[in-house]
Amino acid sequence: MRSHVRPLPSYLIQRYQGWRATTYTENRAWYRRLAHDGQRPRAMVISCCDSRVHVTSIFGADQGEFFLHRNIANLVPPYNPDGDHHGTSAAVEYAVTTLKVAHLIVLGHSQCGGVAGCHAMCTGHAPELQAETSFVGKWLDILRPGYERVSHLPEEEQPLALEREAVVISLENLMTFPFVKAALEADEMTLHGLWTDIGEGGLWQYDSAQGGFVEIIPSGS
Amino acid sequence: MRSHVRPLPSYLIQRYQGWRATTYTENRAWYRRLAHDGQRPRAMVISCCDSRVHVTSIFGADQGEFFLHRNIANLVPPYNPDGDHHGTSAAVEYAVTTLKVAHLIVLGHSQCGGVAGCHAMCTGHAPELQAETSFVGKWLDILRPGYERVSHLPEEEQPLALEREAVVISLENLMTFPFVKAALEADEMTLHGLWTDIGEGGLWQYDSAQGGFVEIIPSGS
Amino acid sequence: MRSHVRPLPSYLIQRYQGWRATTYTENRAWYRRLAHDGQRPRAMVISCCDSRVHVTSIFGADQGEFFLHRNIANLVPPYNPDGDHHGTSAAVEYAVTTLKVAHLIVLGHSQCGGVAGCHAMCTGHAPELQAETSFVGKWLDILRPGYERVSHLPEEEQPLALEREAVVISLENLMTFPFVKAALEADEMTLHGLWTDIGEGGLWQYDSAQGGFVEIIPSGS
Amino acid sequence: MRSHVRPLPSYLIQRYQGWRATTYTENRAWYRRLAHDGQRPRAMVISCCDSRVHVTSIFGADQGEFFLHRNIANLVPPYNPDGDHHGTSAAVEYAVTTLKVAHLIVLGHSQCGGVAGCHAMCTGHAPELQAETSFVGKWLDILRPGYERVSHLPEEEQPLALEREAVVISLENLMTFPFVKAALEADEMTLHGLWTDIGEGGLWQYDSAQGGFVEIIPSGS
Repeated sequence: MRSHVRPLPSYLIQRYQGWRATTYTENRAWYRRLAHDGQRPRAMVISCCDSRVHVTSIFGADQGEFFLHRNIANLVPPYNPDGDHHGTSAAVEYAVTTLKVAHLIVLGHSQCGGVAGCHAMCTGHAPELQAETSFVGKWLDILRPGYERVSHLPEEEQPLALEREAVVISLENLMTFPFVKAALEADEMTLHGLWTDIGEGGLWQYDSAQGGFVEIIPSGS
Repeated sequence: MRSHVRPLPSYLIQRYQGWRATTYTENRAWYRRLAHDGQRPRAMVISCCDSRVHVTSIFGADQGEFFLHRNIANLVPPYNPDGDHHGTSAAVEYAVTTLKVAHLIVLGHSQCGGVAGCHAMCTGHAPELQAETSFVGKWLDILRPGYERVSHLPEEEQPLALEREAVVISLENLMTFPFVKAALEADEMTLHGLWTDIGEGGLWQYDSAQGGFVEIIPSGS
Repeated sequence: MRSHVRPLPSYLIQRYQGWRATTYTENRAWYRRLAHDGQRPRAMVISCCDSRVHVTSIFGADQGEFFLHRNIANLVPPYNPDGDHHGTSAAVEYAVTTLKVAHLIVLGHSQCGGVAGCHAMCTGHAPELQAETSFVGKWLDILRPGYERVSHLPEEEQPLALEREAVVISLENLMTFPFVKAALEADEMTLHGLWTDIGEGGLWQYDSAQGGFVEIIPSGS
Repeated sequence: MRSHVRPLPSYLIQRYQGWRATTYTENRAWYRRLAHDGQRPRAMVISCCDSRVHVTSIFGADQGEFFLHRNIANLVPPYNPDGDHHGTSAAVEYAVTTLKVAHLIVLGHSQCGGVAGCHAMCTGHAPELQAETSFVGKWLDILRPGYERVSHLPEEEQPLALEREAVVISLENLMTFPFVKAALEADEMTLHGLWTDIGEGGLWQYDSAQGGFVEIIPSGS
């Protein structure tokens, strides 16, 4: 392994030094408090790994505010305590039972490559994802039930609809976790489903009364 | 599910509106390009969900730069293509084979609650993590081999040493993935191991020649 | 002094910019009127500095509505014109004689740290507050008479009872100010005592007929 | 006293009910956490009682973020542990030594009635403030040294200059408190001086290198 681990590229060292000399120094007192006292984040956000989604930026969240789990297509698998390593399930368990976050937010986004991959897989256009050894394919299988729900729509509307279905599927799967259900029923936590348009800036949320997404902050100028 | 999904708390709506009216508006042209052309992140960063670690901030990374996977204690499990849902493995596979990132960085940090939990579990002080149904316990099992390597140290030095061992274990496990090994051997990607002191601001990196971590940006004033 | 005064942390600059681009811009016409014409608040509210009490939020008060004085444990000292700097007395004098507010409200709250400190001090558990140089101790002395009134209750009921006694003591002390008495007797101002449960959301008010607090807006779901 | 304490005006009861049914309900989980765990505000803000200054709004601060002390003209008196009730000194002591806030911010504002009163008093135009029994006059005496520093300016520039001098005087007086000095020297807290234009929306901060205020967020459109 050793020979493959390299020094950090200097552009990143310089960036870190810049942060250290400015933002870190400005906020040192607070960062030390957080380090000393521990974190007490108000919310957990489950979002996509996509480099274009900057959760802390769009919600103006500073250090200590959000417990952030990021994976492909912001998916949560169904509750399955089979003894294996389940990273998303572990993150949710830690946030809900140890940190006791007040809000659990699933954030989907437009132009999601993972969702597009699932759509291609479900329509038979991504054989590589159907390979037994494909981790991405097996992960995106979580979203297959979502494809069933949008497959009746015109082809060009399906990807965006599937991005929103990813959020819904994740919310439904979260509800299969006993500790999530318990926290919700005790009113100790609230659940939220969002979808952001990364190019146009709009924000939509899942509205339970309407059973679908409604625009809460418009796109456009 | 429906009755438990609530509207987004207004403080987050206001924060998003603020971002929309300022940062988004300033950068709209770039965000639209990214939405249209797709992401082409230079690096993947695997870091902890901890609310006190702001990867994009400390490296001054803007939209489009980092493919971000965050889980408990920034761990990567060993390669295991058993057909189950493996979120971290899927994220790595996507980053390496589809996005073809140039750098894969594992970033550990001080005061890591996950690592502290693993230490408690390995020293018999966390029975709840040893329960069969504990996702956090099963996830932290990935780090058990790391505990063996630090258990000879004085008790008070073990947590920090284990935080760094988490990075090493993750790097070693990454090397068990054929597509990671292939990209490294073809010099199409480099691997990096980092540890940041969230209170004091210093940055350390794994130095393969020394077989341990060296300080590259000092803590302190 | 100079070297210790730093630039504002950027997270607050960003938040202010967000406000400036949204709320400020929406309301600019009104804010300019207020700046030009002066303030004419309908009520003065004396509340605690506690970060969890958002007076303008809970009463939906917009710019120009409330003259807000906040101190430890929402206390008003007895009238004492000895020539020294008395901040709370000055705020009340300004509100009553210059602004001529119509309502003067004292708002107490649950889980008040200042009141808890007074209780600890009165029961001999806070020697640091009894030090001659302790400003907090000397300030909380205002509330000592309140402790005498609740000390007969079961120990676990005393803190909440003392929080409400803080409101009563403040109202009684307000009545010792000649200009307050005069405004009340001329029916130019009314006095109100409130207590809010910051976790459960309920609101109680001092009922003079009953000589105690009654719930006017219930807690609970 | 009893006969003068009245029920809360119904317009405020309705506003509170509205808040209770919407914002409170949305955030109940968080408010309960805060009530249960206690406050851990990152910053203390000392601002004016003026109804037109909404500190939590302009900084997008939600419950739990700011420890707020408000008095006439956002003044801090010099350190004087003479055993009397000193509300501002007590608030600062509590914030610095018990809550250990990371940032201590003094926020001044335009069109400040208290500062205008001080100016009138210093130029002999407010005999009522010079009365021995005037609490407002005695409180504004804290700012007299500030008048000396601006009296050489053209008359029409003096009020605004005095508003900013109020912030400077308060910062200087804060430095006379041993526990403030200690926290600053140990890098456990930072000090900030701000001035906001309530009509035009701009924000200025005290810049120690320049020895004066610089605009950090512009007024205007």
